[in-house]
Amino acid sequence: NHILVLGHGELTEPILEELDGRADVLIITPNSERAQRLSDRGYDVFTADPSDEESLKRARVEEARSAIVATNNDAEDALAILTARQLNPDIHIVAAATQRENEPKLRRAGANTVISPAALGGHFLAESAIGGSGLETVEERLLEEEPDEVATAADDTDEVDTDASDD
Amino acid sequence: NHILVLGHGELTEPILEELDGRADVLIITPNSERAQRLSDRGYDVFTADPSDEESLKRARVEEARSAIVATNNDAEDALAILTARQLNPDIHIVAAATQRENEPKLRRAGANTVISPAALGGHFLAESAIGGSGLETVEERLLEEEPDEVATAADDTDEVDTDASDD
Ligand SMILES: [Ca+2]
Ligand SMILES: [Ca+2]
Repeated sequence: NHILVLGHGELTEPILEELDGRADVLIITPNSERAQRLSDRGYDVFTADPSDEESLKRARVEEARSAIVATNNDAEDALAILTARQLNPDIHIVAAATQRENEPKLRRAGANTVISPAALGGHFLAESAIGGSGLETVEERLLEEEPDEVATAADDTDEVDTDASDD
Repeated sequence: NHILVLGHGELTEPILEELDGRADVLIITPNSERAQRLSDRGYDVFTADPSDEESLKRARVEEARSAIVATNNDAEDALAILTARQLNPDIHIVAAATQRENEPKLRRAGANTVISPAALGGHFLAESAIGGSGLETVEERLLEEEPDEVATAADDTDEVDTDASDD
């Protein structure tokens, strides 16, 4: 029931901070220096290609709850998603499209959730610019609320809250 | 009561899409090719350095409602923020920290709102990975709701909704 973090990029540190203490995490990155630094900080890390079937099997992808695929290289992300999806049809895969236009491709590769940090950032900036001061703490609110409150806020506007497992 | 977009970067297209039809927008970018393309699409554009005082005065920064500062270069963003703040103490400045560690610096330079797209992205990915399928439509919900609904959802958890002007 662990979470796999496949590859390493700009979003990895924020992701690891958010997951800290909330889930068992295993990171797979081909960069051995980066793997060493993460390992030194106490993380479980495999130095391997995250789109390599053997590596994903060794990382027990069949039993994993979800996989986060968010490197700066969307092509590598697509390959990692395809591999994970092939080995586990039920795993919940979340991904970040570094280029917005790759969002549908990562979805087609097998990701359940694909976000675009640029689109998210543009959205919040534009809302804040239009609304005056009303939204300036939007990110603080999102990022510093207790996990429970975040989930509640999301559930308020989303009917799928009863489906807490996978699809 | 226009909105200034200072500089051009990865977030500019999503920002312009969000603002489309909702505000008068004036873009200032030093890149003449990019300026020409935006102008061809019907946008008001100045080809100029967005941290140049004369350019900002010519763009009527004193009368602008807000400024969006979100290039990929946080140092240039800081300079543009300092210039805009100096010329208009009341303008609402929103900015994007490309490197998370620059968030407090852009705030200190004079931005009212600073977001980090990487932190936002990491937050949503981690929540989605932990929560299973409950949040997979979080970005769709955020990005495709009507502006009114977004404002309402934000107001639900934020007391400053009566202050619709500036601070
Ligand atoms: Ca990516
Ligand atoms: Ca920036």
